[in-house]
Amino acid sequence: MRNIDEDTITQAVLASMSGCSNPRLHTIMTSLVQHLHAFARDVKLTEAEWFKAIQFLTDVGHITDDKRQEFVLLSDTLGLSMLVTTQNNRKPPSCTETTVLGPFYVEDAPEFNNGDDLSRGAPGALCFVRGNVRGVNGEAIAGASMDVWQSDEDGFYDVQKTTAALDELVHSARGRLRTQADGSFHFRSILAEAYPIPYDGPVGKMLDALGRHPWRPAHLHFWIEAPGYERLITHVFRDGDQYLDSDSVFGVRSSLIVEWVKHEAGIAPDGSAQNAPFYTLDYDFVLNPAGGAV
Amino acid sequence: MRNIDEDTITQAVLASMSGCSNPRLHTIMTSLVQHLHAFARDVKLTEAEWFKAIQFLTDVGHITDDKRQEFVLLSDTLGLSMLVTTQNNRKPPSCTETTVLGPFYVEDAPEFNNGDDLSRGAPGALCFVRGNVRGVNGEAIAGASMDVWQSDEDGFYDVQKTTAALDELVHSARGRLRTQADGSFHFRSILAEAYPIPYDGPVGKMLDALGRHPWRPAHLHFWIEAPGYERLITHVFRDGDQYLDSDSVFGVRSSLIVEWVKHEAGIAPDGSAQNAPFYTLDYDFVLNPAGGAV
Repeated sequence: MRNIDEDTITQAVLASMSGCSNPRLHTIMTSLVQHLHAFARDVKLTEAEWFKAIQFLTDVGHITDDKRQEFVLLSDTLGLSMLVTTQNNRKPPSCTETTVLGPFYVEDAPEFNNGDDLSRGAPGALCFVRGNVRGVNGEAIAGASMDVWQSDEDGFYDVQKTTAALDELVHSARGRLRTQADGSFHFRSILAEAYPIPYDGPVGKMLDALGRHPWRPAHLHFWIEAPGYERLITHVFRDGDQYLDSDSVFGVRSSLIVEWVKHEAGIAPDGSAQNAPFYTLDYDFVLNPAGGAV
Repeated sequence: MRNIDEDTITQAVLASMSGCSNPRLHTIMTSLVQHLHAFARDVKLTEAEWFKAIQFLTDVGHITDDKRQEFVLLSDTLGLSMLVTTQNNRKPPSCTETTVLGPFYVEDAPEFNNGDDLSRGAPGALCFVRGNVRGVNGEAIAGASMDVWQSDEDGFYDVQKTTAALDELVHSARGRLRTQADGSFHFRSILAEAYPIPYDGPVGKMLDALGRHPWRPAHLHFWIEAPGYERLITHVFRDGDQYLDSDSVFGVRSSLIVEWVKHEAGIAPDGSAQNAPFYTLDYDFVLNPAGGAV
């Protein structure tokens, strides 16, 4: 096309992709170009604003490395991650809802047995977590694999506390266990606390310019898998947290908010005597059968 | 908001920005979030596709440095740069049209006098460039500053041919001159040839996946400024080029296509005797008065 101007440019770009041999890529890029151009037209983006956007994306790219993923933070804080998560995990209302994975999941976390202490010395108030994993008909799911991870009372995950390579890291407040024959699980850990997402980079500057804070309400992450069921990636949020209505990554769903019950010093659920207050969290998960997406 | 799902997420993100104290930023980000979410919904972006997009942007960020701007290439090849350029440079029809700046402009290019050879040894067929800079009423514009830059016959700009710091570079096929008292200019250079944009990175892979080539039709860049007139950033394209209908950055405008006339060996316009064929390019530029945007 030799007659490119602000009206013809979109059609010219779409026509240039007519030879794309991947139909799904063609669909995605067609929509992307249409929305990208519509955005630039809607706001009549100036050349100076375009240049600022280029600089911003460059900064996001340059702070990203194998420990920090600023593009994921950008997607999270613009609500894209939660939108993609929810539209790909439609389930019957009786199933536990999903929420964002977040950047702190680690493959091959240490394995634990029911009753073990996952905190491994991470600072925080003692917390006993108990529950069941069931199917939509109430059937117990035995042997379900359950990854659990959380921040400590200082607001940090284990992977944020080291500059060494991950394989040298001693994991804490993180682990994998399996449900018992009756579908139940129980372990010790620490009380989850609210924390800010990393905000010393370009995404933090963006949040600041938008009048937004970087905080996430306290939560415990779960990744549950069992043969014959859909994978469930979710959090359990702590009721009462001041950031439940303003999660910086938009992950809160009402059904995932639970009271983490405070107990005064005394005998704990595992029979131990505790000199300080401790917490209990009870939560049951319901998995969708594989192929059961709605 | 505690009830985030695929339907409520967009409103939740927009509500989070209600405290933004910069009205223009608020307008831009509101539109950006709406279009970004609409795109993800329209194509029902999957989690695997989202992850590929994150990886792609990460790769674009990591190849970008002070010599190479892959985000600009991405914007160029998706037509965003040309859209932003044209919608911010609306002019009366009698004015010379703008096109994209491109990534190879250099500030403080070497200064030349009319009649000088700007090629400075860059390989290519000899070309004599002549023309005038005028206002919309035909008035000559004397002393207009004119930056000129181009690739050589191998398809490279001077800045692509060195790994040394820019200030150590000997510029070639690039320079700045001023129009004479009657608004005319003339200089020697080399024939511009078609060339591919850098395609050894993620944008090149994207073009390949889309069935697109990376080539640009042959052109000569101009950046013209004069007091009392709007800045003009444009190219002159070489008529007959095979890529005029498929410029990889969508910069071609019919009014900017010109015949570069081939002459057999003989006496050149500057009176010199040439043993090989040479070319002449004649083009007049018309500047919009400052504040004259339509």
